[in-house]
Amino acid sequence: MKNIAVLTSGGDAPGMNAAIRAVVRKGNKEGFNVYGISHGFLGLIRGDFKKLEVRDVGDIIHRGGTILYSARCEEFKEVDVQKEAVKNLEEHDIDTVIVIGGDGSFRGALALESHGIKTIGIPATIDNDIPFTEYTIGFDTSLNTILEAIDRIRDTATSHERTFIVEVMGRESGALALYSSLASGAEVSLVPEVAEDMPKVIEKVEESIKLGKKHSIVIVAEGAMSADECSKMITEALNIEVRTSVLGHIQRGGKPTARDRIYASRLGSTAIDLILEDKHHVALIVNKGKIEMKDFKKVLQGNKILDTSILKMIDELSI
Amino acid sequence: MKNIAVLTSGGDAPGMNAAIRAVVRKGNKEGFNVYGISHGFLGLIRGDFKKLEVRDVGDIIHRGGTILYSARCEEFKEVDVQKEAVKNLEEHDIDTVIVIGGDGSFRGALALESHGIKTIGIPATIDNDIPFTEYTIGFDTSLNTILEAIDRIRDTATSHERTFIVEVMGRESGALALYSSLASGAEVSLVPEVAEDMPKVIEKVEESIKLGKKHSIVIVAEGAMSADECSKMITEALNIEVRTSVLGHIQRGGKPTARDRIYASRLGSTAIDLILEDKHHVALIVNKGKIEMKDFKKVLQGNKILDTSILKMIDELSI
Amino acid sequence: MKNIAVLTSGGDAPGMNAAIRAVVRKGNKEGFNVYGISHGFLGLIRGDFKKLEVRDVGDIIHRGGTILYSARCEEFKEVDVQKEAVKNLEEHDIDTVIVIGGDGSFRGALALESHGIKTIGIPATIDNDIPFTEYTIGFDTSLNTILEAIDRIRDTATSHERTFIVEVMGRESGALALYSSLASGAEVSLVPEVAEDMPKVIEKVEESIKLGKKHSIVIVAEGAMSADECSKMITEALNIEVRTSVLGHIQRGGKPTARDRIYASRLGSTAIDLILEDKHHVALIVNKGKIEMKDFKKVLQGNKILDTSILKMIDELSI
Amino acid sequence: MKNIAVLTSGGDAPGMNAAIRAVVRKGNKEGFNVYGISHGFLGLIRGDFKKLEVRDVGDIIHRGGTILYSARCEEFKEVDVQKEAVKNLEEHDIDTVIVIGGDGSFRGALALESHGIKTIGIPATIDNDIPFTEYTIGFDTSLNTILEAIDRIRDTATSHERTFIVEVMGRESGALALYSSLASGAEVSLVPEVAEDMPKVIEKVEESIKLGKKHSIVIVAEGAMSADECSKMITEALNIEVRTSVLGHIQRGGKPTARDRIYASRLGSTAIDLILEDKHHVALIVNKGKIEMKDFKKVLQGNKILDTSILKMIDELSI
Repeated sequence: MKNIAVLTSGGDAPGMNAAIRAVVRKGNKEGFNVYGISHGFLGLIRGDFKKLEVRDVGDIIHRGGTILYSARCEEFKEVDVQKEAVKNLEEHDIDTVIVIGGDGSFRGALALESHGIKTIGIPATIDNDIPFTEYTIGFDTSLNTILEAIDRIRDTATSHERTFIVEVMGRESGALALYSSLASGAEVSLVPEVAEDMPKVIEKVEESIKLGKKHSIVIVAEGAMSADECSKMITEALNIEVRTSVLGHIQRGGKPTARDRIYASRLGSTAIDLILEDKHHVALIVNKGKIEMKDFKKVLQGNKILDTSILKMIDELSI
Repeated sequence: MKNIAVLTSGGDAPGMNAAIRAVVRKGNKEGFNVYGISHGFLGLIRGDFKKLEVRDVGDIIHRGGTILYSARCEEFKEVDVQKEAVKNLEEHDIDTVIVIGGDGSFRGALALESHGIKTIGIPATIDNDIPFTEYTIGFDTSLNTILEAIDRIRDTATSHERTFIVEVMGRESGALALYSSLASGAEVSLVPEVAEDMPKVIEKVEESIKLGKKHSIVIVAEGAMSADECSKMITEALNIEVRTSVLGHIQRGGKPTARDRIYASRLGSTAIDLILEDKHHVALIVNKGKIEMKDFKKVLQGNKILDTSILKMIDELSI
Repeated sequence: MKNIAVLTSGGDAPGMNAAIRAVVRKGNKEGFNVYGISHGFLGLIRGDFKKLEVRDVGDIIHRGGTILYSARCEEFKEVDVQKEAVKNLEEHDIDTVIVIGGDGSFRGALALESHGIKTIGIPATIDNDIPFTEYTIGFDTSLNTILEAIDRIRDTATSHERTFIVEVMGRESGALALYSSLASGAEVSLVPEVAEDMPKVIEKVEESIKLGKKHSIVIVAEGAMSADECSKMITEALNIEVRTSVLGHIQRGGKPTARDRIYASRLGSTAIDLILEDKHHVALIVNKGKIEMKDFKKVLQGNKILDTSILKMIDELSI
Repeated sequence: MKNIAVLTSGGDAPGMNAAIRAVVRKGNKEGFNVYGISHGFLGLIRGDFKKLEVRDVGDIIHRGGTILYSARCEEFKEVDVQKEAVKNLEEHDIDTVIVIGGDGSFRGALALESHGIKTIGIPATIDNDIPFTEYTIGFDTSLNTILEAIDRIRDTATSHERTFIVEVMGRESGALALYSSLASGAEVSLVPEVAEDMPKVIEKVEESIKLGKKHSIVIVAEGAMSADECSKMITEALNIEVRTSVLGHIQRGGKPTARDRIYASRLGSTAIDLILEDKHHVALIVNKGKIEMKDFKKVLQGNKILDTSILKMIDELSI
């Protein structure tokens, strides 16, 4: 019986548990012993290993967070530390690790490959900022959580006829801001990928007020601008009262949506298929609705492109 | 200024309002007068027309149902009746109608085309049973509603260690049953596209009980079998108490998910683009994540294929 | 260290876990060993006992169902069987049992008292049908679940301008039907406590249609009439199409609401206070917002009175 | 036919619409013309009046916010301005105004009384900070919204084993913080009514970490301390990373819960009963579960007392 391992790393994302469940159960079915490593790469160093049986992953498909815990682990960049991890894996006779996480996690996987450990990546990050894949575990849930929050804010925005600036996650990626703007009917979306044109933003808000709209909503990705900063500029320009809301950590939690549970299950299951075919050094990606694999190096060198035509659509549909 | 019209027809689906909003606002921006026709083809016959302004579709993007109402209209199969509808359109100087609905609605659109009226179809049905398109408005919301219901049922199933049979919508299509099974971790999924193998179903439930699982969940599409029928067979075979739940109409309602609002907005907007290019006699479809168009005749003659590999995955992951 | 036990019995109700958590933690703090008995009275007979530590009840306050499982147990009516249970308790040196459940469960508690075991009851049932207490664990959650379902049904009812009959739980009690009707703005509520006046029901539905209301909703408690039966009568009388929905088991599950978590915590905590004061043979009740105790016999002989003035209010406000 | 008016004022609260609906429909039934005044006292000055028919309040019972809008209106403290409002009321032959809002709104009502206008107050504020009434419209919904947010945060807190500080609304009242702490199983609750004992807070968090709890949650009312301030103190004392989340405006919005819809309906209906009995100069209150009335002056001079025994319970149950 071959031994393999699975870990979750980086920011937690809803659906990670569904992926772990798929890895463990499909792995088990195919005759593998599947070890769960706690706290991501930190657990790899510390030897935080536990063999997972099929019952250990029961009743988790619908739970947010990750039963394997996650952690940042800056020291894993050092070769000595990596060697410690490899030693731990060898002691458990594990030659393959499935890494569930974002690009930082994939960099860790590449480091393991350099020491002869086989790795497969499963894209999981609420930011949807991994190149080549149109899907990452957690994005759909996070998007729906944001919408729910904005639907609530809309009630109070309408009742007081106010302009609201809502700050959503996304340090380098505007995906959450962009699609939540389209889906909520927001007036403006500010994303880090596009230099903001504040005079135009202000003009749009002004126009909305003139048109007699009951409220205006501006959604900013944290990487583009803070809600406070944006609020200040609009207040100064238009002399109106503006409210801000920073959605924060609620965007990471909650039950995964259908889409996140389905893709996470499919990705976890496919990762085992790849091991059976002796494929490694790759991340799974979703390309035009199909699950494919892509060399880690290409993924890490790639450039995630935001569909900026959506910005135009947001503008046109919020008149 | 050119006049166009939009109607919703068939079963209502969450996201229809987002599509109507996009049609009206994008249409308006491109210089069209957009008429809303109430109650689908029935309103077309009755002359139930109303010009929609951009403000009329404010604050509806997040609402379930359809502000244009929907209705069945058997009499629209008769040519005389169709002529009445065409007369009403001509009186309002409308030469193009955007039809939001399922295949029955597209058949109505084709009838209009036979009288010289240009039509464009937007696929909207919770069943996701329209050929060539991987996406239909409402499916994602319905799927998530089913999951929420099953998550609740799971609480009580676990507390009483029971087997539950949950009946979901889908007369001819098992898409809702299939994907809700994968996403909820159900033990078995029965769909109309695949002849059921009751001995295997019973064996699976028996095995789950033996494995000490706290509950078993069997999801049946109404087109495959009724929950009662399935319950009877399992009860007789295993001599256990089984509970049933028919989810019914809750599956049609509720706020649309992010995905449904985004695609509905994009589809509505694209329909206007097609009119600008003088395209018609087509339904919009989503193919590999991209919005394309397909001749109505092909869509209506096509065959929707269910991805039955998912059935295998459901079985493998619910051990 | 004194040993006590806790069990959940009868239909599961959201909030039971919050009560168990409070019993275990407050009990622990006061120096008791708290045993959890699985599967209610069945587990009492079978000796299904487990000492619960404070960590065992971590992360359960927000979960539906009951971690102690529940079961029916007809045989507990027999004295011989009761003696078996008492023997098991004595073997664990347990002289007090906290029983979380409905009136059937309280009857079981009384049986234990007849054998010298001290018992305290915590009212938990989604039906809110226990005399003298205005509150039972689970009712508030169930009510909100029903409302969420009706809000969904309302979307489709409005879109098709239909009359809907919604059947909710309540074999002998109309509390869920009554308050969900008031809260959802339903036109009519049928409860087992009041003989139904079908001509008046039909008249009300007819009037709603005449008034041009987009939909009518009739809520029936299962104990009053089935949705099908009601539908048949309305259809025959008014010659209109009517839709039915039987909400079923979704009404038992889901995360408990704030109110259910708060009261469950307070009731569990207070049960320990009573043990410290050597009080027993009582159920906790909520009377005018205050937690009090009431002799089991009085509770079981009492009569739960439905506030029928609410029926008048439902009628007046749904014009 | 007698004319009366209704307005909403102050911060919006979920359930206000259910109260407006009850006032309009019960008022109508009793033979009153009911005018809706938009934007609270501002609309009273501006003459922003509109007669509301029973259909105007259809389909609003389940909507957050207020269809009558709300606004602050500092100038209403001036007698000249008040006289303007009275003139507008007299022009519409309105001698009674139902004021839905918090204590600021009741002060406005008192001002109207000083000019001979009869007023009745309905308590509505998410803060639950009005003396003598145990219930205010919106509190229950807001509490549940906070719980939902904390349940999400808990996922990520558990996954990263972090301490979280969550800041909730409540400038002068700790009710939301207190009850959300009990209901979420938070470790500590800081409220403005009780001087905070930071060494004890820090000790509790430290103890939680030592006990191996997967996360600690501290809930602070904005009036007690900011999340940032609290975070800084804990970080300095324990040298741990702490995360903060300011829930903000999402706490005001969303569909009202069952409880808020029920009480809002009952309060609105009772306000009309009082007018029929020629009662005025009073606010409706809920006392031991019963709706009663209380002179405005007493309400405004009263002192809202927080049940601090709940703080002890929070501490005992979060071990």
